[in-house]
Amino acid sequence: QERRLSADEPWPFLMRFPVSCFSICMGFGIQTVLWKTLSTIKWLPFMHIPKYVNLILWCLGSFLTLILFITYISKCILYPRLIRWEFTHPIRSNFFFAPWIACMWLTVGTPDAIATTINPIFWLLLMAPIMLLNVRIYGQWLSEGRRLSESANPGTHLSLVGNFVGALLAATTGWKEIARFFWVIGLVHYLVLIVTLYQRSPTAPVLPKNLRPYFFLFVSAPSSASASWCALSGRFDMVSRSCLFLAFYLYMLLIVKINFFRGFKFSVAWWAYAFPLTSFANASLHYSVEVGNPGLQGFAVIFSFVACVTVFMLCLLTVLHIFWGTMFPNDLMI
Amino acid sequence: QERRLSADEPWPFLMRFPVSCFSICMGFGIQTVLWKTLSTIKWLPFMHIPKYVNLILWCLGSFLTLILFITYISKCILYPRLIRWEFTHPIRSNFFFAPWIACMWLTVGTPDAIATTINPIFWLLLMAPIMLLNVRIYGQWLSEGRRLSESANPGTHLSLVGNFVGALLAATTGWKEIARFFWVIGLVHYLVLIVTLYQRSPTAPVLPKNLRPYFFLFVSAPSSASASWCALSGRFDMVSRSCLFLAFYLYMLLIVKINFFRGFKFSVAWWAYAFPLTSFANASLHYSVEVGNPGLQGFAVIFSFVACVTVFMLCLLTVLHIFWGTMFPNDLMI
Amino acid sequence: QERRLSADEPWPFLMRFPVSCFSICMGFGIQTVLWKTLSTIKWLPFMHIPKYVNLILWCLGSFLTLILFITYISKCILYPRLIRWEFTHPIRSNFFFAPWIACMWLTVGTPDAIATTINPIFWLLLMAPIMLLNVRIYGQWLSEGRRLSESANPGTHLSLVGNFVGALLAATTGWKEIARFFWVIGLVHYLVLIVTLYQRSPTAPVLPKNLRPYFFLFVSAPSSASASWCALSGRFDMVSRSCLFLAFYLYMLLIVKINFFRGFKFSVAWWAYAFPLTSFANASLHYSVEVGNPGLQGFAVIFSFVACVTVFMLCLLTVLHIFWGTMFPNDLMI
Repeated sequence: QERRLSADEPWPFLMRFPVSCFSICMGFGIQTVLWKTLSTIKWLPFMHIPKYVNLILWCLGSFLTLILFITYISKCILYPRLIRWEFTHPIRSNFFFAPWIACMWLTVGTPDAIATTINPIFWLLLMAPIMLLNVRIYGQWLSEGRRLSESANPGTHLSLVGNFVGALLAATTGWKEIARFFWVIGLVHYLVLIVTLYQRSPTAPVLPKNLRPYFFLFVSAPSSASASWCALSGRFDMVSRSCLFLAFYLYMLLIVKINFFRGFKFSVAWWAYAFPLTSFANASLHYSVEVGNPGLQGFAVIFSFVACVTVFMLCLLTVLHIFWGTMFPNDLMI
Repeated sequence: QERRLSADEPWPFLMRFPVSCFSICMGFGIQTVLWKTLSTIKWLPFMHIPKYVNLILWCLGSFLTLILFITYISKCILYPRLIRWEFTHPIRSNFFFAPWIACMWLTVGTPDAIATTINPIFWLLLMAPIMLLNVRIYGQWLSEGRRLSESANPGTHLSLVGNFVGALLAATTGWKEIARFFWVIGLVHYLVLIVTLYQRSPTAPVLPKNLRPYFFLFVSAPSSASASWCALSGRFDMVSRSCLFLAFYLYMLLIVKINFFRGFKFSVAWWAYAFPLTSFANASLHYSVEVGNPGLQGFAVIFSFVACVTVFMLCLLTVLHIFWGTMFPNDLMI
Repeated sequence: QERRLSADEPWPFLMRFPVSCFSICMGFGIQTVLWKTLSTIKWLPFMHIPKYVNLILWCLGSFLTLILFITYISKCILYPRLIRWEFTHPIRSNFFFAPWIACMWLTVGTPDAIATTINPIFWLLLMAPIMLLNVRIYGQWLSEGRRLSESANPGTHLSLVGNFVGALLAATTGWKEIARFFWVIGLVHYLVLIVTLYQRSPTAPVLPKNLRPYFFLFVSAPSSASASWCALSGRFDMVSRSCLFLAFYLYMLLIVKINFFRGFKFSVAWWAYAFPLTSFANASLHYSVEVGNPGLQGFAVIFSFVACVTVFMLCLLTVLHIFWGTMFPNDLMI
């Protein structure tokens, strides 16, 4: 009966609610981590980042995540066929990692006022679905099912970010060896993915124009890898630096291609700008703490500012579009 | 005249004897190494692995290797055209590495009762054919001849394992710099291969169903890399761990796909289960010695047990099928 | 009007002057670096390499580079359409990196008689065009424009060598962090390229027979990476060794395929033999200094000798062909 819906009139709300909305939660999750990092940095005397920004963002992010969870679970119950379709779509399926990554970032960014240590049970609860999804996706690449050469797209980065964020959370709770395991798994699959994406084989799917913000996901995986290796090894060593340098280079490559990111309307896909930029800003702050060079510290502050402004603008646009009723158009990819 | 043979009646024995039989020798070779490692481990007081298991396995393995060598050389003399065919087949050709790898593992696993040091001359004798084969195969990938994108299959891992086992033997005889050289060469070509295999380009050959055990070769290359880097650097550092973690993850990916490995008859290809599992068990024992965590030690013992049971079952099945006369069916891949 | 030229009679000189001529400058540039390294090595008492060889080569190389710069700029002014064609050609375009790399090598190889320290301004001036070209090429690979899978060829290595040589020059001037940045960027893109080239996808362009010397560019990128990491870290550690080992292996793979490099006439493409061999010789000298093994020192001297003889023969052939008027035939690739 779902197919019989007319494309002219709006469908029921839940049918128009895509899984990619969880990228909003990801944006808020990593923002809490960024503001937690900012509030601990000593070389910002002229700024005095207060700790309550982190607290407010954390409450807002947690509330939003709860709302979206409830909404999406309702969709699961009412339209299971749509969920199955989203789950097998080469681009959309990657966003099934998003809710768990968002929750992990919220856990890492927990304000000191609420908790100073993290119970490893949270890691287990949040990592379990990521591992199951990973085993499914990487298993398909390996032996049978959807080939990587026919499904690799910038959205696939989300399946890797989960490993790195899982490593970060494990390192934060003190499980170093498990953190190393997920970091290595993430790195190997990242190498496979970056080579595949760079080759742009003629068999790979081409992103529709309005999904081009997903290209910024290129920045998210190495940024996350950098920050989580830093948490693992206790200092910002050559491995963390290499990841950050790569993230910076990819960032520059995308910034230069500014025209590539113009000429399409606002949609929930724009939230894919939020967490790569914030993730990079967070890693660059850690780097500037290690190096202690005023120039690099200035850069890190600028990147943080850009990330915060981006998230703020996205919030504004989202609120406006919800108000105008144009935030959730009919899901034409179905 | 070879083509005129009827498929209904059994061909002469030597024509039915494929080069992949040497994977039996590989299974025995790495088992001797495993039992040598087991007999030196201190935290197994309740088990007291006696040294003579290694000795018995070594004698059995050496004898078997000798028999198979003689058999295959007879085939070389009597049916040179069949050898040429096997040598140019994209899957079968990789097994020309197997006899030399098996001999290297037997050399590494030499019981202390026979010799405690290894003469580097053995390394030269065993590595020479592997180097010649490697130069031929990698040279083809590089410039002209069979393209990697049209020949990569899980069996290609055998061409890499040779480098890692050669590095292990060189490190054991004290030639550290040469060991490093082969380890690095192995790693670079492993990266190329793993990316290619993960992509599963539409031009790559698909394994026939009865050769699916070759998928376990995915586990063998990183396991060997892990053990040989451990022998090289003297301790189980981050590089060895990374390789082991990758091997473990691939192992899990394959275990989960249990249905993928069902529904085909026993053949000599099943011996491809033997050495990846044993190789992984051996590396995980070294890891557990370094880390000293009882949980990981337990895991390592379980993996060793699984590997030994697998080899035992394969021996049993092989003996039964030889008895029934169904071990060497007509070589229909010709 | 350019298309109307007959292929029988020689065209105007500037039209026959390809951008790949700058590989001659690259050959001279790295030779000055090699002789500077040779003159500082202590374990060559029987040879006493005098410092003035470096000086003579440097003057010759600088003069030649100046001449070629003036010639090519004249071509830019008179035949802008030809330049645009060269700039978009998948093989030829890579040689736009050559003049800047040559200048950087000349800067690194500056004789002590002229200057002992290098002003970082040279790095900025020479690296700027390389960065612009890189951002353009890698940006195309990443998002839109020419796909890597349809343009990767051995000549693409030149786009990587620029990063490594830039890192070397930055390390020489003391900018360690910037040197690390470019080294990492070079390494990641090298991984992408080596995997792509090894796969030899059916969609990749095939080098014409007379351009086969470009295959030796395979040796140049890891050799440069090795030397520049050595300058960065202050010693020839495992990373430098890994790069050198890979370069050596690729060198051997190509030497073995001697017949692949026969049966085509001398052209300016032959100069692609010069700088990979010299670059490798230079890196192997640094290695032999670190290890101090007489055998390896002997090998390094042999490689240096081979490189020098190659460059000398190429000079001779070039002078002869200029004399015969056959050095610059009509540019049939247009």
